[in-house]
Amino acid sequence: MSHAKHSATLLMSCPDRKGLVAAIANFLMTYNANIMHADQHQDVAEQLFLMRVEWSLDGFTLPMDDFAKAFAPIAAEHNMTWKVSLSSRKPRMAIFVSRYEHCLADLLHRWRIGELDCEIPLIISNHEDCRRLAEFNGIPFHVIPVSRDNKAEAEAQAWHLMDEAGIDLIVLARYMQVLSRDFVTRYPSRIINIHHSFLPAFDGAKPYHRAFARGVKLIGATSHYVTEVLDDGPIIEQEVTRISHRDDVEDLIQKGRDLEKVVLSRAVRWHLDDRILSYSNKTVIFD
Amino acid sequence: MSHAKHSATLLMSCPDRKGLVAAIANFLMTYNANIMHADQHQDVAEQLFLMRVEWSLDGFTLPMDDFAKAFAPIAAEHNMTWKVSLSSRKPRMAIFVSRYEHCLADLLHRWRIGELDCEIPLIISNHEDCRRLAEFNGIPFHVIPVSRDNKAEAEAQAWHLMDEAGIDLIVLARYMQVLSRDFVTRYPSRIINIHHSFLPAFDGAKPYHRAFARGVKLIGATSHYVTEVLDDGPIIEQEVTRISHRDDVEDLIQKGRDLEKVVLSRAVRWHLDDRILSYSNKTVIFD
Amino acid sequence: MSHAKHSATLLMSCPDRKGLVAAIANFLMTYNANIMHADQHQDVAEQLFLMRVEWSLDGFTLPMDDFAKAFAPIAAEHNMTWKVSLSSRKPRMAIFVSRYEHCLADLLHRWRIGELDCEIPLIISNHEDCRRLAEFNGIPFHVIPVSRDNKAEAEAQAWHLMDEAGIDLIVLARYMQVLSRDFVTRYPSRIINIHHSFLPAFDGAKPYHRAFARGVKLIGATSHYVTEVLDDGPIIEQEVTRISHRDDVEDLIQKGRDLEKVVLSRAVRWHLDDRILSYSNKTVIFD
Amino acid sequence: MSHAKHSATLLMSCPDRKGLVAAIANFLMTYNANIMHADQHQDVAEQLFLMRVEWSLDGFTLPMDDFAKAFAPIAAEHNMTWKVSLSSRKPRMAIFVSRYEHCLADLLHRWRIGELDCEIPLIISNHEDCRRLAEFNGIPFHVIPVSRDNKAEAEAQAWHLMDEAGIDLIVLARYMQVLSRDFVTRYPSRIINIHHSFLPAFDGAKPYHRAFARGVKLIGATSHYVTEVLDDGPIIEQEVTRISHRDDVEDLIQKGRDLEKVVLSRAVRWHLDDRILSYSNKTVIFD
Repeated sequence: MSHAKHSATLLMSCPDRKGLVAAIANFLMTYNANIMHADQHQDVAEQLFLMRVEWSLDGFTLPMDDFAKAFAPIAAEHNMTWKVSLSSRKPRMAIFVSRYEHCLADLLHRWRIGELDCEIPLIISNHEDCRRLAEFNGIPFHVIPVSRDNKAEAEAQAWHLMDEAGIDLIVLARYMQVLSRDFVTRYPSRIINIHHSFLPAFDGAKPYHRAFARGVKLIGATSHYVTEVLDDGPIIEQEVTRISHRDDVEDLIQKGRDLEKVVLSRAVRWHLDDRILSYSNKTVIFD
Repeated sequence: MSHAKHSATLLMSCPDRKGLVAAIANFLMTYNANIMHADQHQDVAEQLFLMRVEWSLDGFTLPMDDFAKAFAPIAAEHNMTWKVSLSSRKPRMAIFVSRYEHCLADLLHRWRIGELDCEIPLIISNHEDCRRLAEFNGIPFHVIPVSRDNKAEAEAQAWHLMDEAGIDLIVLARYMQVLSRDFVTRYPSRIINIHHSFLPAFDGAKPYHRAFARGVKLIGATSHYVTEVLDDGPIIEQEVTRISHRDDVEDLIQKGRDLEKVVLSRAVRWHLDDRILSYSNKTVIFD
Repeated sequence: MSHAKHSATLLMSCPDRKGLVAAIANFLMTYNANIMHADQHQDVAEQLFLMRVEWSLDGFTLPMDDFAKAFAPIAAEHNMTWKVSLSSRKPRMAIFVSRYEHCLADLLHRWRIGELDCEIPLIISNHEDCRRLAEFNGIPFHVIPVSRDNKAEAEAQAWHLMDEAGIDLIVLARYMQVLSRDFVTRYPSRIINIHHSFLPAFDGAKPYHRAFARGVKLIGATSHYVTEVLDDGPIIEQEVTRISHRDDVEDLIQKGRDLEKVVLSRAVRWHLDDRILSYSNKTVIFD
Repeated sequence: MSHAKHSATLLMSCPDRKGLVAAIANFLMTYNANIMHADQHQDVAEQLFLMRVEWSLDGFTLPMDDFAKAFAPIAAEHNMTWKVSLSSRKPRMAIFVSRYEHCLADLLHRWRIGELDCEIPLIISNHEDCRRLAEFNGIPFHVIPVSRDNKAEAEAQAWHLMDEAGIDLIVLARYMQVLSRDFVTRYPSRIINIHHSFLPAFDGAKPYHRAFARGVKLIGATSHYVTEVLDDGPIIEQEVTRISHRDDVEDLIQKGRDLEKVVLSRAVRWHLDDRILSYSNKTVIFD
């Protein structure tokens, strides 16, 4: 379900009113678009209309360089927030990791076999542990140690690397550091984190230990966009697995790894495929 | 996710081509429709376009009695197969049951608390067992015994009852009789069956016994439209649950009951809400 | 997996040490027991040994009236907490319900078809709504209205009814009242509640509304023993189901009903089958 | 839930009769065993008793070299089939792979981080594709091309390598060749395969394509011991995931990969942890 070849994808939202589907369909038809996927959602309570539409550029008569100008009147009329992506331009993704390599290994494997349609210009870590894995995959690996004292400096160093690399998306693959408010606001809806619990249960530290102590019968993992409030951003995906009294904390950690990998990779793929719109601290995942 | 009040729902399919979304959206906009839900699907291999659109009748300026006439030119131009339903007209559903009452009890409970938006003018059974349950729910219960010799006659009797009651949909809630070809062709895509296995595994008789003998680790249930070939019609919904070596056949039957209830009731609800289109022995379930 | 006919079931726990399995197996062998199921668990951190063993009474040479006396020396030696149940003596269960009837209807249906091996001498409610359903199942239905002012009195009335009926287990089938501390301590590990969230997330009031507001992608239900702290007792079972941005609060409530029914009924069945031991605010569920 | 350190694990089965638990518990108690896990199962229909027991060797007074001799009388008396494993002796596993690397990559990653407690002395493939991955993990990679004509010769070459390496377990990680009857009988209950369907549905070739054509709503994967009949051996583990009409065959293949990895790795882990007994073409998975 990734992008079709030579396609464009429009993600938009605006106040709900009559005629929005027709307005967009007619605009695209004017230029002979072949719509390949369209999905829309209305949030009745918030009076919001949201849409994703993907069309083939084969035979599309509007040069994409002129798209913004041509679409502007419709967007203005309906007060739209919108963004268009081209399948020919791969998003550029940075991965942050600490010592646990399972999420990183999973993302890199999926990337290598074509599940994740992006460039990965760099991996940033506060530890050396994952260097060999990164280099096996041919990706520059930068170690930026983080301590209580150098946090601002370390983040500045990361920004510098990311600015140079033109990063669109940041994935925290079990990166065990809390990012500063400055960092987070710099990349709105562009930092994806994996939290190893079924949020909002067990937000914060040591969720597997706390799940064990509480005696739950299922454990979970949650991928979400990072906001200024820890573990509180818009949830993208969640999954759970069954545990029993026979499982100790180590078993939870092992079973949890499988959840984390799946839940994080789905979020990353959906983001790369322009399937996610977030608003009101929630997400819409378009089919 | 059932029909909104005072709404109309169009289900259509036609050969895929450019401009179909715009054509339908524009038609509805002409009459000031407030589209509440729209979902479409393209089957690339079969070059087919399928769509479900639901709009409010509040403010819709085309009287629904005139809909067919007004829509005919567009339908003809695009070679559409289509059907429109009104939320004000509740579908009329017959339930066939034998001796196991769990699916019947589940359907009737859901109907009583408003999950299934339909009339149930009659229940038909080849046994007396479920009479008390039917009557508790205020539904006429007809016993039509079926033997090897009287099958045609028994079916004719059922048809007569159903014709009188104006039945739109037949639900086989663990009805342990194979319907004749005549019966099935009389109600195309309008008979829903529950089969107690994960089809196509264990089609035919005694699926739980055969699942036990094979040593599977999951058992399933499948709801599907009935066609002339036994257990082979378009699948609407499936679900599985985990079993272990500790479960004997009786345990499978017990666990299976929960699957059967859920899988059958989802299919019935989706059908009643006009969410299902079937083609090429498959189904599309619109959101 | 319910009790075998003419069987006895021992549930025990004690400080872990060597030789416990042998001690119990030898004791039972002395009287020619045919062990049908045995399952044990060691909690390493708490140094606790827990066991469930079920044996046939056919050929068992110790009269069950003398069991306690015969077992006492072993129990004393190992400092055991233990309880033995006979399949011939059905537990007596009271159900408390308010207005939502889905859990009650589900429990009664399972009871009617033999899934729940117990007597149900009474149903208590603070509303009239479920009377017809109770009476259809032939169970006395007692309405005890509860207000802010009469809580103690209402509970005393319920106790009186339950004492007369010799109640072993109380099931709160969406009973929308908080029980007093006195009430709860009177029935330790003998009151089962269903909470309509994935605890510890969304404990307290209106969990579906809060799940909707938080934008979670899965909703859950939890059955647990009731303790003095609201929604905090030992968890018996949990289950989740997937939701999407298309689901509004009403959809969550509908999907949640299916979870609540399954999760509550499993807990009740396991309790009736003497499969649950609770300690340290957790449960062990024996196979 | 892998083996404890310095532990021994006994897997046994025998005709069911009274006193078996006591016989084994008493034998172990004689030598001061500290039992850490015990799980048993009775197959009533087949009159079979099966047990797994794991005990610490700390303080165990019987040298394990003498175990067989000491245990022989009990084993003979009860007609037991049994096997004992020591946590100090890691099983030696060979992996066969063709071109798809996802299962191999997953197994190797789990092995690297300690989830799979074994040695991997060699990987055998009929293609060069996975060499780099194998070598990154420091495992000798042998390419043995297989054609219609050289099958016997190729298998002999594999045997030779495996004999030299002292292989205990063979894992077919999407190895796209059917093994000969000779090969299979040489490693009874010691070859684990992953089949990319929910067996017995879609056994044989191209299961994802056939699942797509049939229009199922869930796809599955199955790990099983290999027997002489293709895709018919004892099932070890199965899992499914939901698909919809929006998923084409490529989507099924992608979603299926995640199932295959999880289902294969669980089977391998359980085998390595001596948790599996197979009989009557079924498996018992001990907790």
